[in-house]
Amino acid sequence: MSTTYRIAPSILSADFARLGEEVRQVLADGADWIHFDVMDNHYVPNLTFGPMVCEALRKHAVKPDGTPAPIDVHLMVQPVDSLAVAFAKAGADLVSFHPDASTHVDRTLQLIKAEGAQAGLVFNPAEPLDVLEWVIDKVDLILIMSVNPGFGGQSFIPSALKKLEQARRIIEKSGRDIRLEIDGGVKVDNIRSIADAGADTFVAGSAIFGKPDYKAVIDAMRAELAR
Amino acid sequence: MSTTYRIAPSILSADFARLGEEVRQVLADGADWIHFDVMDNHYVPNLTFGPMVCEALRKHAVKPDGTPAPIDVHLMVQPVDSLAVAFAKAGADLVSFHPDASTHVDRTLQLIKAEGAQAGLVFNPAEPLDVLEWVIDKVDLILIMSVNPGFGGQSFIPSALKKLEQARRIIEKSGRDIRLEIDGGVKVDNIRSIADAGADTFVAGSAIFGKPDYKAVIDAMRAELAR
Amino acid sequence: MSTTYRIAPSILSADFARLGEEVRQVLADGADWIHFDVMDNHYVPNLTFGPMVCEALRKHAVKPDGTPAPIDVHLMVQPVDSLAVAFAKAGADLVSFHPDASTHVDRTLQLIKAEGAQAGLVFNPAEPLDVLEWVIDKVDLILIMSVNPGFGGQSFIPSALKKLEQARRIIEKSGRDIRLEIDGGVKVDNIRSIADAGADTFVAGSAIFGKPDYKAVIDAMRAELAR
Amino acid sequence: MSTTYRIAPSILSADFARLGEEVRQVLADGADWIHFDVMDNHYVPNLTFGPMVCEALRKHAVKPDGTPAPIDVHLMVQPVDSLAVAFAKAGADLVSFHPDASTHVDRTLQLIKAEGAQAGLVFNPAEPLDVLEWVIDKVDLILIMSVNPGFGGQSFIPSALKKLEQARRIIEKSGRDIRLEIDGGVKVDNIRSIADAGADTFVAGSAIFGKPDYKAVIDAMRAELAR
Amino acid sequence: MSTTYRIAPSILSADFARLGEEVRQVLADGADWIHFDVMDNHYVPNLTFGPMVCEALRKHAVKPDGTPAPIDVHLMVQPVDSLAVAFAKAGADLVSFHPDASTHVDRTLQLIKAEGAQAGLVFNPAEPLDVLEWVIDKVDLILIMSVNPGFGGQSFIPSALKKLEQARRIIEKSGRDIRLEIDGGVKVDNIRSIADAGADTFVAGSAIFGKPDYKAVIDAMRAELAR
Amino acid sequence: MSTTYRIAPSILSADFARLGEEVRQVLADGADWIHFDVMDNHYVPNLTFGPMVCEALRKHAVKPDGTPAPIDVHLMVQPVDSLAVAFAKAGADLVSFHPDASTHVDRTLQLIKAEGAQAGLVFNPAEPLDVLEWVIDKVDLILIMSVNPGFGGQSFIPSALKKLEQARRIIEKSGRDIRLEIDGGVKVDNIRSIADAGADTFVAGSAIFGKPDYKAVIDAMRAELAR
Repeated sequence: MSTTYRIAPSILSADFARLGEEVRQVLADGADWIHFDVMDNHYVPNLTFGPMVCEALRKHAVKPDGTPAPIDVHLMVQPVDSLAVAFAKAGADLVSFHPDASTHVDRTLQLIKAEGAQAGLVFNPAEPLDVLEWVIDKVDLILIMSVNPGFGGQSFIPSALKKLEQARRIIEKSGRDIRLEIDGGVKVDNIRSIADAGADTFVAGSAIFGKPDYKAVIDAMRAELAR
Repeated sequence: MSTTYRIAPSILSADFARLGEEVRQVLADGADWIHFDVMDNHYVPNLTFGPMVCEALRKHAVKPDGTPAPIDVHLMVQPVDSLAVAFAKAGADLVSFHPDASTHVDRTLQLIKAEGAQAGLVFNPAEPLDVLEWVIDKVDLILIMSVNPGFGGQSFIPSALKKLEQARRIIEKSGRDIRLEIDGGVKVDNIRSIADAGADTFVAGSAIFGKPDYKAVIDAMRAELAR
Repeated sequence: MSTTYRIAPSILSADFARLGEEVRQVLADGADWIHFDVMDNHYVPNLTFGPMVCEALRKHAVKPDGTPAPIDVHLMVQPVDSLAVAFAKAGADLVSFHPDASTHVDRTLQLIKAEGAQAGLVFNPAEPLDVLEWVIDKVDLILIMSVNPGFGGQSFIPSALKKLEQARRIIEKSGRDIRLEIDGGVKVDNIRSIADAGADTFVAGSAIFGKPDYKAVIDAMRAELAR
Repeated sequence: MSTTYRIAPSILSADFARLGEEVRQVLADGADWIHFDVMDNHYVPNLTFGPMVCEALRKHAVKPDGTPAPIDVHLMVQPVDSLAVAFAKAGADLVSFHPDASTHVDRTLQLIKAEGAQAGLVFNPAEPLDVLEWVIDKVDLILIMSVNPGFGGQSFIPSALKKLEQARRIIEKSGRDIRLEIDGGVKVDNIRSIADAGADTFVAGSAIFGKPDYKAVIDAMRAELAR
Repeated sequence: MSTTYRIAPSILSADFARLGEEVRQVLADGADWIHFDVMDNHYVPNLTFGPMVCEALRKHAVKPDGTPAPIDVHLMVQPVDSLAVAFAKAGADLVSFHPDASTHVDRTLQLIKAEGAQAGLVFNPAEPLDVLEWVIDKVDLILIMSVNPGFGGQSFIPSALKKLEQARRIIEKSGRDIRLEIDGGVKVDNIRSIADAGADTFVAGSAIFGKPDYKAVIDAMRAELAR
Repeated sequence: MSTTYRIAPSILSADFARLGEEVRQVLADGADWIHFDVMDNHYVPNLTFGPMVCEALRKHAVKPDGTPAPIDVHLMVQPVDSLAVAFAKAGADLVSFHPDASTHVDRTLQLIKAEGAQAGLVFNPAEPLDVLEWVIDKVDLILIMSVNPGFGGQSFIPSALKKLEQARRIIEKSGRDIRLEIDGGVKVDNIRSIADAGADTFVAGSAIFGKPDYKAVIDAMRAELAR
């Protein structure tokens, strides 16, 4: 079975003055998901946006054929629970959090799923994957950070490739349908090797929104993935 | 000398999908300042938006005649210092914070002014004004909360009128040019009595952005203020 | 008009193995209210008991004539809001908290009253009463600490008398029906002078529960108050 | 060698108005240990009871033959150290804590043992057992959570069975006499399979105290364990 | 009665490689007290030194005539209690703390005095003096900050003069023997006006230790004070 | 290839009144590195010293031949980042921190290296080494704690030997040049067996500075290491 790849542009690099338009455009240009980077100035030293922005964009996150595109929320916040629920209520389809930011990881996963959203776990570059052994049956997405979250201008950390491979083995062993996402320094020229390591979902910020022609970048990424 | 009143619509009630347009529209419709409610899910239980949104809107915050409109940032965050500086760098003209959220209030005021912005102090409904005695020479704006920050759907707390009167006396005694702003439950039908208590700058959120015709509301407010 | 005094034994000094019986006994012996000292090992360095204990005792807090006796909860906890609501739901009639433990004092008062309970503010020995000026219309009880909360074996701090006098003047000026309670080192031999300073409600722990005959102590206190 | 099973009813589900009586009754009805669930509203969002309650119940925790029954304290608190010591001083025989709640796990274990109590580590559903490798020589009890602590009405999490098996192997490899306890959703109809996975000590709350006849439940559990 | 002035050089500006010698020298050159600026990187963003340094210097803090010189500790730390006690045990004669850094100010004062040290309260530039009304009978020293603590290179904040005057009136009203100390930007050319505002004890850091001849500076300060 | 051992006396046990002299003396007596134990009263319950002390000692940390001796800083602080950078700027050659004290371990390592210092990770007695798998390419030193940091008078914890062996295998597998340091209870009579377990760098506090003749101890340690 061939893998279905997903490209998830992060609105962190979009124009905040016209987010609705940006979201519609990037989906028209071929993106699959819309990625939200939520920072609270505590888990990471920066503040971005909260559930109200998600709610406002919900109706703009539609594909050209009119079907809704998944909103994929990455919470860089601590504590996690109240915001996880708030984003699910605001229309997020996937809500992911850092296990080291929640004392009760199993319960946070349950809270997200009880709201009807899919639940994900995010792993910082230095964070082991051990927790997955005990909650894999409640996880719908694993997000591997290939840069340190919350800080700009970083390049892809090579050990993330090994971690993708390890995560892919865990997913296969579980027999469950779990997305394996990568975030940080993903570009046209490394997306193929990242996919080879096991990733099937790719967050890209400035690589897409930083360019004048979103479609050209997305097409180039898809061409690499199709090789 | 007649008071010059300022109306400062809060973008918290605007459409986040097209903030640039909303900001331009409300200024075209007669608003004086653009008010930013920044929440970090720690000082208040909600997360709104950070410096990047301010930066993106800086170029849209222009009056019909092309002159820039002041961006007035209300920080409901703790700690304060790094975000205060970040907003000043992102183009905020005024940066206000809660004195109970900063251990070193005098220094935070200095940090804001060192960035070239004006500095304000915000007082929760139960918070006394005592701190003003010691830092009044570094304060450019006093913001009196007439609702509890961070929570929606509240009505104007009457003791705020008495606090406005007290703040007005402090400003007059100082002989300095300090704005006296009010935030919470301000509407056309109470703006006159609030002005009578001493306020000269009025934050309004849903009262303006919640209505189809911003200009009608702003005009009605000005008519009340002109009585 | 003569003052109606209230004696409120603190179950902190009762036998925890048979709290229901202790509560019934002390009310049969003449107590008016049941006082709960709630500590969370964060606001004070000790842990006592939570809402479930309150709920279990609700049905035992009845006077000899079968009418319910008020349960008077003193929260030495931080943060305040969720526990304040939980105690109100568990049957507390009055819920008091330290203003320095809540960032949003006005809102916490509103939360308690919205649950149908009366709301109080507690002042540590070194804490000024300034906050009362701004929320006096939402306060049903003022509790002056005459020892430092959370620590045993302390004697009555004299400056509490002056603070009672100041609080009494604030209450009288407000024209509202507000209880003025004292907690810490209250005994038969000083209760009269404490009442003279303005207190009308008296917490006593070991002074009552530490003695074999509760009625004897309560009667002696009432005799002093009747002088 | 046959395993000696222990049943440890949690007083969290007992009647707080007459805890002494409840403790005596459940021991008369065949319970082995008394289990204390200590919550501080910080590590978990609930507050239960502290060392004073333990101290008051110490003399009631006696078996029908007059010998003392072990008091088994589960600390859901953060920080841990001062309360761990306080419970040991208050008569607890075993004091267990979450390793993720203490920065200095080895030292906390030492503090408990220095007070003459036995020391345990508790593992949340998502928490790996790795820490055991380094402190197994100081551990007298391993408590596996099969629900998320601090929240009611949950059912047994299946991955706890696999964790029990892993913990049992660690204990056997150590050659030490270490109790393996399970807490969360234990009932008559699953206790046998839980024992098969390696548990030898069983916490039960509402399964026992929620029923009118404690003895009937405990006897039924023992019958299952004897199968 | 003429005031006895005290000059208290802060070792923060001394040579940390030979503190014993520095302390002996500055006392030989006429200093009265040795001032310790203790920072914990939490109350202020810097870390300096702890009780062990105080203990090591205790025996070097002697005046030329062999009598011990008071060690005057200014705690810029949060929490306060354990370090306050540790410094008193390490030989500090005065231990001062910020009231906003301690939840239980009255108790912290008691803890310090119970160790046999004198207790002081320190007020940040924006901090009102209100707390003094309730604990003045336990205070031996009031320290007015004329710069923001924890940051270097600041100049004297003028509103500190007004605060000194207010503090002096409070001291006089109390009738107690309380030192009134000033810290921040004190120099030969402003010490006279600071003394005129009510200060009797002067902290100086780089003004003394930053110069080659300590005695010249101290003599010049005394000359100003004697005018 | 023979291992080059390093002996790193901790100035925590030196005379704080004349640290420069102590540092020069212990280096003259054969020590290789100078070890700094930095405690902030938050990660551990003690406060020692900060970057200014490091800066003052930089010029005294020279070997008899005039070459600078490495200053090896062990941060027992939380948060880590700002102090890590401050120590690197103050002249530290190696800066090590506890991975459990930093949310973004990979980034903290990068910050230290960006300042030109070498970066280390410290593992508490109960802490697993798992994080090393993901950041080994950024680590220059691994420090294994054989006592709990921040507390005096402890003896060597035996499981540290097994952890040294595990760490040594990780280092060998990486093929990188990484120092393996041990801290806690190292003495002449156990240094040989510690070296056998894999350590090549030895922190010693009171074992050296607590003795009158530093050289005798260092020589005896070297003799053991040469066996």
